[in-house]
Formats: sequence, structure tokens, C-alpha cells
Amino acid sequence: MDLSTIIGIGAAFGLMLMAILQGGPLSIFINAPSLIIVCGGTFGNTLVHYPFKDVFDAINVAKKTLLHKEVPINDLIEQLMEFAHKARKEGILALQGAMESVDDDFLKKAMQMAVDGQEPATIRSMLSTEIEYIEMRHGKGANIFVSIAAYAPAMGMVGTLIGLVQMLQTMDDPAAIGPAMAVALLTTFYGAVIANIFCQPMAGKLKNRSESEVLTKTLIIEGMQAILSGENPRIMEQKLHAFIAPKLRESTFNK
Amino acid sequence: MDLSTIIGIGAAFGLMLMAILQGGPLSIFINAPSLIIVCGGTFGNTLVHYPFKDVFDAINVAKKTLLHKEVPINDLIEQLMEFAHKARKEGILALQGAMESVDDDFLKKAMQMAVDGQEPATIRSMLSTEIEYIEMRHGKGANIFVSIAAYAPAMGMVGTLIGLVQMLQTMDDPAAIGPAMAVALLTTFYGAVIANIFCQPMAGKLKNRSESEVLTKTLIIEGMQAILSGENPRIMEQKLHAFIAPKLRESTFNK
Amino acid sequence: MDLSTIIGIGAAFGLMLMAILQGGPLSIFINAPSLIIVCGGTFGNTLVHYPFKDVFDAINVAKKTLLHKEVPINDLIEQLMEFAHKARKEGILALQGAMESVDDDFLKKAMQMAVDGQEPATIRSMLSTEIEYIEMRHGKGANIFVSIAAYAPAMGMVGTLIGLVQMLQTMDDPAAIGPAMAVALLTTFYGAVIANIFCQPMAGKLKNRSESEVLTKTLIIEGMQAILSGENPRIMEQKLHAFIAPKLRESTFNK
Amino acid sequence: MDLSTIIGIGAAFGLMLMAILQGGPLSIFINAPSLIIVCGGTFGNTLVHYPFKDVFDAINVAKKTLLHKEVPINDLIEQLMEFAHKARKEGILALQGAMESVDDDFLKKAMQMAVDGQEPATIRSMLSTEIEYIEMRHGKGANIFVSIAAYAPAMGMVGTLIGLVQMLQTMDDPAAIGPAMAVALLTTFYGAVIANIFCQPMAGKLKNRSESEVLTKTLIIEGMQAILSGENPRIMEQKLHAFIAPKLRESTFNK
Amino acid sequence: MDLSTIIGIGAAFGLMLMAILQGGPLSIFINAPSLIIVCGGTFGNTLVHYPFKDVFDAINVAKKTLLHKEVPINDLIEQLMEFAHKARKEGILALQGAMESVDDDFLKKAMQMAVDGQEPATIRSMLSTEIEYIEMRHGKGANIFVSIAAYAPAMGMVGTLIGLVQMLQTMDDPAAIGPAMAVALLTTFYGAVIANIFCQPMAGKLKNRSESEVLTKTLIIEGMQAILSGENPRIMEQKLHAFIAPKLRESTFNK
Repeated sequence: MDLSTIIGIGAAFGLMLMAILQGGPLSIFINAPSLIIVCGGTFGNTLVHYPFKDVFDAINVAKKTLLHKEVPINDLIEQLMEFAHKARKEGILALQGAMESVDDDFLKKAMQMAVDGQEPATIRSMLSTEIEYIEMRHGKGANIFVSIAAYAPAMGMVGTLIGLVQMLQTMDDPAAIGPAMAVALLTTFYGAVIANIFCQPMAGKLKNRSESEVLTKTLIIEGMQAILSGENPRIMEQKLHAFIAPKLRESTFNK
Repeated sequence: MDLSTIIGIGAAFGLMLMAILQGGPLSIFINAPSLIIVCGGTFGNTLVHYPFKDVFDAINVAKKTLLHKEVPINDLIEQLMEFAHKARKEGILALQGAMESVDDDFLKKAMQMAVDGQEPATIRSMLSTEIEYIEMRHGKGANIFVSIAAYAPAMGMVGTLIGLVQMLQTMDDPAAIGPAMAVALLTTFYGAVIANIFCQPMAGKLKNRSESEVLTKTLIIEGMQAILSGENPRIMEQKLHAFIAPKLRESTFNK
Repeated sequence: MDLSTIIGIGAAFGLMLMAILQGGPLSIFINAPSLIIVCGGTFGNTLVHYPFKDVFDAINVAKKTLLHKEVPINDLIEQLMEFAHKARKEGILALQGAMESVDDDFLKKAMQMAVDGQEPATIRSMLSTEIEYIEMRHGKGANIFVSIAAYAPAMGMVGTLIGLVQMLQTMDDPAAIGPAMAVALLTTFYGAVIANIFCQPMAGKLKNRSESEVLTKTLIIEGMQAILSGENPRIMEQKLHAFIAPKLRESTFNK
Repeated sequence: MDLSTIIGIGAAFGLMLMAILQGGPLSIFINAPSLIIVCGGTFGNTLVHYPFKDVFDAINVAKKTLLHKEVPINDLIEQLMEFAHKARKEGILALQGAMESVDDDFLKKAMQMAVDGQEPATIRSMLSTEIEYIEMRHGKGANIFVSIAAYAPAMGMVGTLIGLVQMLQTMDDPAAIGPAMAVALLTTFYGAVIANIFCQPMAGKLKNRSESEVLTKTLIIEGMQAILSGENPRIMEQKLHAFIAPKLRESTFNK
Repeated sequence: MDLSTIIGIGAAFGLMLMAILQGGPLSIFINAPSLIIVCGGTFGNTLVHYPFKDVFDAINVAKKTLLHKEVPINDLIEQLMEFAHKARKEGILALQGAMESVDDDFLKKAMQMAVDGQEPATIRSMLSTEIEYIEMRHGKGANIFVSIAAYAPAMGMVGTLIGLVQMLQTMDDPAAIGPAMAVALLTTFYGAVIANIFCQPMAGKLKNRSESEVLTKTLIIEGMQAILSGENPRIMEQKLHAFIAPKLRESTFNK
């Protein structure tokens, strides 16, 4: 369970609620037509922009993100080093047995291809294509949140303009101007909250996740190439360490 | 018929209308000079920016988008696998017969070139050029909507400035200030609606369509290359599956 | 004469004028100091940003754009096919005679180089360099309009701030506030009109023209390469058709 | 200790404080709920966007930046020239001894790889990978500050909207309107200060640091390549001087 | 002396001053605390973002820009053609004598390398590296002005917020509201002037200068390559002419 996301959303919404309640009742911030115009309009725009399927995929991805647990990259390097030792001692086919302990589907596929005797160049090109299109699909997931973060404030502005026009056309009672304008501002408020306290950070998180997943997968490709070419394990480890920060590099040879 | 677009536009406009009607009559949101300055001005700007032909092309593309039905990418992969089996058994020329059942013009062209005996490298380069320029034309279609989405709010602001200057110059009757300002705001409102509830999502949809069409065409190129080089069908299927999400991959070999 | 540009500018300005006149006299929208600060300031900024020569070049380019008549791309393909037939029958030198009927300087240069016996690779690289720097010069022309479209609203804001500060410092007569503010808003209005009804669409038009010119020139390079390598005319036509939309492709072989 | 950063932050904050105090007491600029909504909300958004670890890393990087002392690039070139002379006279293995006087971990690693007898191409590719991923990690550090600089004004706007809605709903006492609006504006003020006087310049500084570090490391790679290929020292110096401004180039041969 | 820059800055500032004086005394636009908060804050931010050295370098570069006189590109092409003729007749070493009449350091360096007998490929790669890093340093110079153009309006907004909060907290005397608000707006005015009438155009000018310098240097590299390979002078001239606009091409052979 991804604590940082939970705490972050909780903190942002909680503190906002607290600040609201300190200044007055929450009820003045709730207005059904305003909610309908912002949420409904944003949802409508999103459906025009993206097919149903992609929108539901994005929601699923967001849910998964909250439950996701990242594998430390050092463990992956260690695992690849182990496979390298095994392959050097017992031959590439020995990886067949090791595959059962592997959880990562991408690593599994890479190993299966190696065991099947495919060319290193073929493996690299096929897995690179796969990474490229994974990035593209992830990018679309993040972009849906970016789009919502653009549509929500736009619908908020449309709503505020509607409220202002109606208020200005019927300014008979000066006492009604203030509350009418407050209601008009609510759609702008909803739009800003949807965009900034939910969608923008979520889009950012999805992009970060995608980057770290691509890094992991690139490491797997490089590792498999080194294993297949029977490279010196120390050099292979140095190569894999080049991908991560110096302070994270724990050589298995110094243990 | 593309339901998601219809529902999306319907929802956004419908909910906006509902919110408007709840606050007062619709008539206060209709003002002929305001409509003329925003719609006419935006149309004028668009004609300066793009030739007649491109603007009408964009409208056609938008219409087609509403009626478009996407072919599931799995069906395409299956079809390419079938052709591969056929070509391996009966030779490349057997694709001539299979061409008749093919709807996609791009796939047809690729097959015709293969049957004509052209080099795989020539086929790849010619089809890649075609994809490149298809992307460019699609990009122009989407950009027209992006441009309109920029010109409409700009004309809205120009209209509001005109209204404000006129109102401020003749502030004799305080009771007239409110309605005059309401009218001045209408152009901003029109600009925001045109840009956000129609053009932006439409531009986004066209970009998405273009991406998925390019993906389909790239798959066709890769598939034809594999067929021409007589590649092992299992490897070919793996290669094509690299383009799509793991959960969509249905191997024809496991059936 | 480019009708679409003339109609576009006419429509945008005409409708704006019409909307203005319907609400009051045009005179309240004319204010000499406001015009001076926006137009003069924008011109000054542009002269700092670009050398004299480039600014006058941009004005010339804009004028040419209004008078420009595009050659249909199909005619160019047909012409290249003709040259290919001629070169296959009578040899490359036969292009010398054909050159006289050619208007396009770029095509003429390409043919001259071919007749002079230069290597296909040299021709391609030299013409590609030329295209690259044509794009750069065109880009600069469009960028001048983009810059003006950024400076004009900025100067408009500066002018409005000056007007507001002067008005706020001398608020003795409440009746004078409205008109003073109206005048202050005029500079913002001028800036918005210059940027949105003239410069932005013009910059867009120049970019489009540049793109279509580059497409034409790229076609010429590909065509000359095919002619020099004595490629099969049908394949050459297919190659050139890859650059244009399927519905525009008219084969000379089906006639 | 990086004086320019200290003076810069001091100047910006100090002058702002001075300007505030000249106009009235500081106390009217301090409001607990406003601070909570801007700082807390921004922190919450940042935690959703980035994992805990990355946020703390960014703070560490920022601290290091204040204490960082850049090595003059000329000293590095001189050092590399020295190693080149040594390697030409006594052989590559002589670098083993020289390594002890080297502080830079990256240069040390490059030298170790050379002494270990690895191929120049392998060294270049491994160190280039390392630079690529260093840039990526630095970019993330700078991006955290860029994100905060986007979230803070957004939360400021949310806070101001809350304040305005509450004020407009309860406009009984005209005398209370001014102070209520002043408080509503405070969140916008906090957001602007956090974004512009702290985060934006800090993000810029981190990007500059990253660029100069990448330049240094690229120089090291080029230098090691020249040393390994036993290149003429004068040519090697010319090559390294190509990376720096002409006026900084001090040839060791003219001394 | 670069007239266009002087005239441009003079026109923009002069016309602004004229417009100000027509509406009232200049004194109401001068306010010490406002100037301190905008200029000082912007300077502080810039020092955090860039090291001292870079800021002073940028000021020097800006000064040089005002005094800079561009060499017509046709003269450079003619000079290169001359060297080509000389080298073809008397051998590459004859360039040694010609070097004395050369002002451009980059051309001198290229000629020295050719005379020293270095490989064409080495010369190209070394000079290309030099161009790449010249572009990077120029880019940094322009970016400092871009950054100032972003910080100044931001500090202007901070200053205006401070003024508004102070004004709203102490609204006892209605007559004081106007002047207080005028003063609050001054910081926004200063920020807009610094950004738009000075920094943005200056950044643009530096980018243009950099582009034309890179074009000149690229021409020199291509010219030296042609000279070293003893290319036909007519073809060499054609190659160099590809970099410039057709109407600027004056062949030395037609004279």
C-alpha cells in the first residue's frame, strides 16, 4: 500500500476542510448545479477526448498505483547477477529452472526467449519495442489526468461566467449580490480543487511510476544481454550499477 | 457510430443548459452581436491561418470520427498470422487471393507490393514514408481544432473589452451597468464554451485516433516484414504482441 | 491572389467593426496616446529583437503570401513522371531541354545538377541542406509575427497599468472614473486586436506555407533520386504518392 | 559555501520584509489557517506526486547545493593533460598511482576501468550510461522544486476562493469586507512567495549545477579516450578546449 | 554600433514616457519601496538561479551586442572560395600565409588545424564540438534574460499583493483608497516594463545573434572540408550557397 499517496491526499483535503470549517459552515461550499456543471461537464469532455475504455483503464491504473509496492532496484540487480553466475556455470538452459522463482512478467519473458535460443539482437529489439509501447500506454494514462486537470478549471470558468451573467442581469436586491457571487465562484473553486488537489499530482505520480518501471525493464534488457554474451560478472555489475545512484550501489563482490 | 463522443458532447452541453435554466431564462445568454463577433471573428482568423480546403477537410474528418468504428487490434494480428501461415505453406503469391477479403487499404497496398515481388526494405521504407505523412495530415486536422480553441477565447476577450469600453463611457444610468456588463461577459462565455466544450476535446480525440491508426499501420509493416522473411510464426506473434498491452495478448497457438 | 486570407481578415475586422458600431460611435475606440504606446512600443521591441532587415523581409513575405498561388501537388508528380520517362528513353542529358519549361527554381537546380553529372548522394545532401535552411528562414519569418503577437498585448497591459495608476491617483470626480477607465482599457484592446486578429493567424499561415513548400521540395528530391537511379516508373509513382493523401493520388498509368 | 545563493535568498526575502514593514506591521501578513492551507496542501500534493524518498533527497540536494564548491574546469583539463603525459611515458598502468590524488569519483572510476584494461568503447558506453542516468536523477530533483512552484500558487488560489466565498456569503458588516478580503488574499501571497522567491530560482540553480556537472563528466570521458588512444597531447588539449569558452583556454604548452 | 537595438529601446521607452507625461506628472510613477521590491527581489532571485559570474557575463554579452557589427555572409563565402583557389594552386600549406589577413578566430583555428595536417574528420568533429558548446553558452546568456523576464512580473505581483493587503486592512479613509491602490499597482507596472520592454526583446536578440553565429561557423566547417578534399570550386560554391537565401547568392564565377 502506497502510504505517501494516501497521506498526501489526506493532508491536502483534510487541511483544506479544516481551513474551511474554521471560517464558517461547510454547507456554503456545496451547491448542486455548480457541482453538476463542473463534474458533469468535465466528464463529458473527457469522454469526447478519450474512449470509454481508456477512461476506465486510467481509473484502474490509479487504483493500482495506490496499492503498488516497488521492488528495490538493488534486489533486481542481485537477482540478475545470480542468473549470470548460474548461466556461466551450468549454461543458459539452467535459467529454465530459475524462472519459476521470478515474479516479474517482463523478466520471465526475457528469460524464456533466452532459453528458447533466440538471438541476443532479436531479444533486445523485441523487448525494446515492448518498453516503447509500455511507455506510450502509461503516457496515455497520465495524459487522461492531465486532460481532466485542464477541463475542470475550464468548466469552472464557464460556470462562474453563467453565474455572473445571471447575477448582473437581475441586480434588483443589493443584499443578494454577495451570495449570488459566492455561488458563482463555487464552480471556479470546484475546478481548481479537482485539477490541483487530485489530478495534477496523480498525473505526476503516474509519470514517475512509468519512468521507474522503464528503468527496471531497461536494466533487465541490459542484464540479459550481458548474461547471453557470457560477460565477466564484475563488468556486468559495473554496467548495471551505471543506471543507479552511486550511494545505492552495493557490490555483491564486497559482501 | 462512436457512442462515447455523442454521450460526451451531449452530457457537457446538456448539463450546462440545465444549470443555466435553473438560474433563469435562456434568453439572457443569447445576444446576436456577441455571437457574430465571436463566431465570425474566429471563423475569419481560421481562414487566414488555414486554406479553405483544410478547414472543410477538418470538418469532414470530425464527422467521420463520429461514425468511425475501430477494428480490434487482436483481429488484425490474427489476420496477419493467418497470412503468414498461408505464405509459408503456399508461397507469397498465395496472398493475392487473400487480398480480396481485406478491407484496410494500407494492408492491401502492403500485400500488393509483396505479391509484386518488391524488396522488403523498399516496402518498409515506402510504407514508413506513407505513415509519416499520414501523421502529418492528421496532425494538421487536430491543429485546426486547437487553433479554433485559441482564437475563440481571444475573440471573446476582444468582445468583452468592446462591451466594457462602451459601458464605461456611458455610465449615466447606474441601473444599466449590471445588464451592460452581463452582455459584455457573454462574448467571453461564448469563447470559453466553443474552446472547452467542443474544440479541445475534439482535437484530443483526433490525436488519439491518429495514434491508434499509426499503431495499426506499424503493426502491418512489421507483420509484412515477418511474412516476407518467412519468420517462425511463434516469434512473429511475439513480435506483434510486443505492441499491445499484455492483457490483450491472445495467442492463436493456445486456442 | 489568396482569397481565403483576404476574406478571413475582412470578416474578422468587418464583424468587429459592425459589433462596435451597433453599440455606439467608433470614436470612443480611438485614442492617440493609447495607439502610440501600443504600436510604437511593439515596434520598438520588435526592432530590439530582430534586425531591421528581418522585419522588412517579414513584411515582404506577408505581402507575397497574399498574392501566392500554390501549384497543385499532382501536377508536380505528373511532371516528375514525365521527366522520368524522358530520361529512361533518351538519357539524363535529355532533361537539359525539358528544363526550359520548368518554373520552379528548386526543381531547375536539381535538374541542372543531374545534367552536370553530379552524384545522386551529393545532389540529395546539397538539396537537403537547402531545404533545412529554407525552413530556418521561413521559421524566422513566422516567429517575427509570433513575437509581435506577444509584445502587443504586453504593451497593452503596460498602457492599461499607466492609465489605471493615473486614474486612481486623481479620483476627485466620480463621473470621470468611468471614461478614464474606458481609455485605460483601450490599450489592452489594441494589443488583443493586433495579436489575435492579425499576427497569430498570419504566423500560422506562414508556417503552413513553409510546410507545404518543404513537402514540394522533398518530393522533388525523391523524384530526382528515382530518375537518376532509373527506377521503374510505377514504383517511382508509388513512392511519390506515399507523400500525399490517398484520395489525391491519380495514377498516370490509369489514364 | 555558495555565496551567491545565500546573498540572493537574503536579498529577495530581506527587501520584501523591508517593503512590508515600511507599510505597516508584519502581523497583518501572518494568518495561521492561510499558512496551513498553502503549506500543508502543497506538501500533500507533493507527497502524492513524488515518493517520500525523492522529496527528502531533493531537500538534501538543495542543502548540498548551498555548500557546494565547484572545481574550476581548467584545473580538470590540466590534471587530464598530466595523466596523458604520464601514460605516454610510463604506460597506462602508471595511472594506478595517480588515482590516489584524485577526489572526483567519476574520474577515479574511469581511471580504474582504464587500468583494468577494459576496451575504450566499453568505458565510453558505460560512463555515458552513467551520465545519462545522473542527468535523469538531477532532473527529478529540479522537477520537485518546479512542481512545488506550481502547486503553491494553485493552493493559494484555492485558499483565496475559500476566503472570498465565505466573505461574500456574510457581507452584513461593510467595515469587515476589507480585512476579510485582505485575509483571503494572503494565501495567494504565500503561494506567490513560495513559488517565486524560493522554488523557481532553486530549480533553476539545480538545473545549472546539473549541466556543469555533465560538462565536467563529458570532459573526463573525452580525456580518458584520448589518453587510451595515446593521442598527441597538443591535439588532446585542443579537443578538451573545444568544450570551454575561448577566453578560459589556458594552454599548458604556453606556460 | 547596432542601430536597430538603440532605436528600438529608445522608441519603446520614449513613447511610454511621452504617454505617461501626457496624462500627468512622472512623479506618481516613482515609488522607492516598490522599486526596491521589484528590482531587488528580481536581482536576488537571479543570483540564486545563476552564479555571479554568469550574471556579469550576460551583462557583458548584452553590451557587446549593442556594439556588434555583423560580417556579411557573402564576404565569408568569397573569402573561403579564395582560400580554395589558393589551396588548389599552391597546396594546403599556402593557407599559412593567408591566415594573417583573417580576423575570425574560429576560421583561423580551422585553417591552423588544416595546415597542421590534421585529418578532415578530426577537424570537423573538433569544430562541431566547439559549435555545440558555443550554442550552449549563448543559450545560457539568453536564458538569464528570459529568467529575469519571468522573475520581474512575479515580484511585481508579490509587491501588488503586499500593497493590496495593507490597503484592505486599513480602509478607514475612502479618499486614501485610490492612491493606495495606485501605489500597489506600481510594482506590477515595474515588473511588466522590465520584462517586456527590456528583457524579452534582449533575450530574443541574443538568440538571433547566436543562430547567425552558428550559421557562419557551420559554413566555415563545410568550406574547410571542401578545401581539404580539393573539391571542384563551382560545386563548393553551390554547397555554401545552399546555406543562404537564393537572392543573396552572388556567384564569384559570374563576375
